[in-house]
Amino acid sequence: MPTDSRLLLAARRGTIATTLWVGVLASAGAAPPPSEAVAAQLRDAAIAGHSPAYAWVSELTTRFGPRPAGSVSEHQAADWAVARLKALGFENVHIERFPMTAWVRGAENAAITAPGAQPLTVAALGESPPTPPAGLDGDVVLFATLAALKTAAPGSLAGKVAMVNERMVRTQDGAGYVATVGGRADGPEEAAKRGAIAFLLRSVGTDSHRIAHAGTTHYVDGRVPVPAFALSAPDADQIERLVKLGQTVRVHLFSSASYVPDAYSQNVIAEVRGRELPQEIVLLGAHLDSWDQGTGAIDDGTGTAIVTAAAKLIRDLPQRPRRTVRVVLFGSEEVNQPAPPQSVFGGHAYAANHRDELARHVLAGESDFGTDRVYSFALPKAVSGAEFAKAALRILNPIGIFAAEGPPTEAGADIGPSVEAGVPAFKLSQDGTHYFDIHHTSDDTLDKVDRVQLDQNVAAWAALVWLAAESNVDFRTHAAPEAKP
Amino acid sequence: MPTDSRLLLAARRGTIATTLWVGVLASAGAAPPPSEAVAAQLRDAAIAGHSPAYAWVSELTTRFGPRPAGSVSEHQAADWAVARLKALGFENVHIERFPMTAWVRGAENAAITAPGAQPLTVAALGESPPTPPAGLDGDVVLFATLAALKTAAPGSLAGKVAMVNERMVRTQDGAGYVATVGGRADGPEEAAKRGAIAFLLRSVGTDSHRIAHAGTTHYVDGRVPVPAFALSAPDADQIERLVKLGQTVRVHLFSSASYVPDAYSQNVIAEVRGRELPQEIVLLGAHLDSWDQGTGAIDDGTGTAIVTAAAKLIRDLPQRPRRTVRVVLFGSEEVNQPAPPQSVFGGHAYAANHRDELARHVLAGESDFGTDRVYSFALPKAVSGAEFAKAALRILNPIGIFAAEGPPTEAGADIGPSVEAGVPAFKLSQDGTHYFDIHHTSDDTLDKVDRVQLDQNVAAWAALVWLAAESNVDFRTHAAPEAKP
Repeated sequence: MPTDSRLLLAARRGTIATTLWVGVLASAGAAPPPSEAVAAQLRDAAIAGHSPAYAWVSELTTRFGPRPAGSVSEHQAADWAVARLKALGFENVHIERFPMTAWVRGAENAAITAPGAQPLTVAALGESPPTPPAGLDGDVVLFATLAALKTAAPGSLAGKVAMVNERMVRTQDGAGYVATVGGRADGPEEAAKRGAIAFLLRSVGTDSHRIAHAGTTHYVDGRVPVPAFALSAPDADQIERLVKLGQTVRVHLFSSASYVPDAYSQNVIAEVRGRELPQEIVLLGAHLDSWDQGTGAIDDGTGTAIVTAAAKLIRDLPQRPRRTVRVVLFGSEEVNQPAPPQSVFGGHAYAANHRDELARHVLAGESDFGTDRVYSFALPKAVSGAEFAKAALRILNPIGIFAAEGPPTEAGADIGPSVEAGVPAFKLSQDGTHYFDIHHTSDDTLDKVDRVQLDQNVAAWAALVWLAAESNVDFRTHAAPEAKP
Repeated sequence: MPTDSRLLLAARRGTIATTLWVGVLASAGAAPPPSEAVAAQLRDAAIAGHSPAYAWVSELTTRFGPRPAGSVSEHQAADWAVARLKALGFENVHIERFPMTAWVRGAENAAITAPGAQPLTVAALGESPPTPPAGLDGDVVLFATLAALKTAAPGSLAGKVAMVNERMVRTQDGAGYVATVGGRADGPEEAAKRGAIAFLLRSVGTDSHRIAHAGTTHYVDGRVPVPAFALSAPDADQIERLVKLGQTVRVHLFSSASYVPDAYSQNVIAEVRGRELPQEIVLLGAHLDSWDQGTGAIDDGTGTAIVTAAAKLIRDLPQRPRRTVRVVLFGSEEVNQPAPPQSVFGGHAYAANHRDELARHVLAGESDFGTDRVYSFALPKAVSGAEFAKAALRILNPIGIFAAEGPPTEAGADIGPSVEAGVPAFKLSQDGTHYFDIHHTSDDTLDKVDRVQLDQNVAAWAALVWLAAESNVDFRTHAAPEAKP
């Protein structure tokens, strides 16, 4: 840990040991401190930068770079995470492996070849097959949206390259992504159905840089039907303008992507064991794998940093929480699979491995939406209006977080299979206004991490998770009494 | 011209014909309008968007994409410019060719190979030779600055890859670029002197995106000594962090760049002939070539648009100016040459071709610093404090432009050889705060052009060039009387 920032951090952590808990204990005398007071202290310590969050994401992304699912680098990152989690004092630290099919980007390039030669910036979409070794050539047929492509007649794209140029709308909550990403998932299939030899997609993203956004496509009967590429936004604009000038745009596309059917990935698990109800689990999730061109700093290096740092602050309290806090760093979030369940293999593997425990998972949350500040929280319906929700608001509102109306609509991909099996979910919603400028690109690197906002995330997670783990609230039915330590 | 914006533009231009000049003539009665009033009208027409500037840069960058010096695309763009300039009503439109050596980027890639595999985003520096066909491998020796590299002992870099990680400081006037670009020009030579097998440079730029900034390197005895690459800022950061973690960073580098010694480039010339003193020339320069990965929108597509649009507004006046306004769209600004004069071949070719005319070039200016607003103007020392300078300030100050202290220190690369031969220069200084985020990258595309700021540039150029061309001021000596139309 020789970097300046980590030495600084270690020095800071020395300080916290003498100031934070002394303050808490002093205010409460000899009795255990009230849960809410501890939550406030955890929050304030995180805001003050007293957590290993930045050092974690810095070392993870620097040592291992991109961590595509099933790659050596993902495996090495998982081994490193185990060692670091042990060093941080977590218990029951271990890896749970699962088999998967990996997709490996090869060499790739693309160019406009007519009316004049111009280079194109592309990224092969995840799971998409290679082109022939000499590449392929075709005239572009431009569709403004996936819906427009779906209206094209069968056979009408024979020998052509279908292109969907749908623009993603910038929103705070990611709704623009949800509205547009269908073109990426289903575009190759819809293009192939109509005879196209390849598929081009305007990147699903909100930036206007010469960087393409990767992402998964759907397998159809075990294969992605045609080679598929994302274009950077300026490249998509350029093709659109050429078409508007009356030009027929011909492109050359090449990819040597490949598949590794006997790969494996893994979930990394670590715990702060509960002092009274260790069998009851508050689950904190994030994913350790990343797309293959950036270093997965904001997707999802900082997610792993946030949940780990929050749990570490709780672990370092003089007294453990009643319930167990379990951190799961999922593998293989970013890829689709040829066979069911086609996506979030790490999340499915966890839910399957821990099926017998899921009834004792009292609450689960996931951090996988970048590094920008949390602006709202949502809790399970059972605790709507309850004292727990009021206490959470009292703790979180001072750091700019309000209480969302209603329970989470979607709490995270990796915890999804567990949530579907009945685990109650909470959500700390992050500001995603700028997230899709970087998401799934080579530009997802450490310099994009805002330390002040990262610390605010850690604060929110540490405080809320502490409140839940220290309580005996039943988030399924709210049948149990409110926590009164 | 079927795009919406150009149709809109044509419609607008119809309007201007009936409103702009009627207004001027009305205010002046039957006598010719005062020069300053015409300058104000030109300015206001440009601010209102009544110029072909945006349509010019849109069509240029869309049709021809990158226009590297000596390439087919540069030649085609020059032919297009001739046709467009004629259609816009310019006179004496022609091409002046000159021979040159072209440098052609090949395939290229780079990666960290130890301690773990990580891709690197690079761009081979201009003029740098190819690697061996299998690439080359070496351990990185990191230097914080070019000055630090120069202190390394002879032979100390044998078999190594030297890397200069100097950070460019963001400034409004480009001073940060001037302070840092020496690493790019001289780095390969200094590395080679000490035995290095290749040279890596932190991009000379102010962004933090995964996009490398190209640029020229110096020939030494007719060759660039070693393969040389720019790294994007996040890649340079990553190597620096790995080194700080105590790692030896090994890299693999590949480039198949090549040279075309019998290439040619060209200057495109167009005029608005003067009504009284046609032999006296006000020269407006910009360059038509660009770097090879972007489409040269802000470097220097908009420069060509600004000077062309300014001259077009002047050309469309009811009465020509006294002196000739000459637009020169230079070729081959962006490359160095193996033999003297090593740089700005287009500028040297122009000065050589027009040697006999240079004494009659009364004033020259160049637009080659992006598209952002002009914030100051500078005039030759001879007219310091003169009525001409006062009139210019009266016209330009309302659009946010002040009078710089003193004459231009540097007025532009392409007009440089003419200025060295005695032609007086003016400068309209643009805000370069964001210019080096994009400069010399694949990201230099049309979407980066701010139309409002582009129009402000056209306004400044049209007004100031009109004032100079309508006057009979001698900018060398200020011996002639002030212009009194």
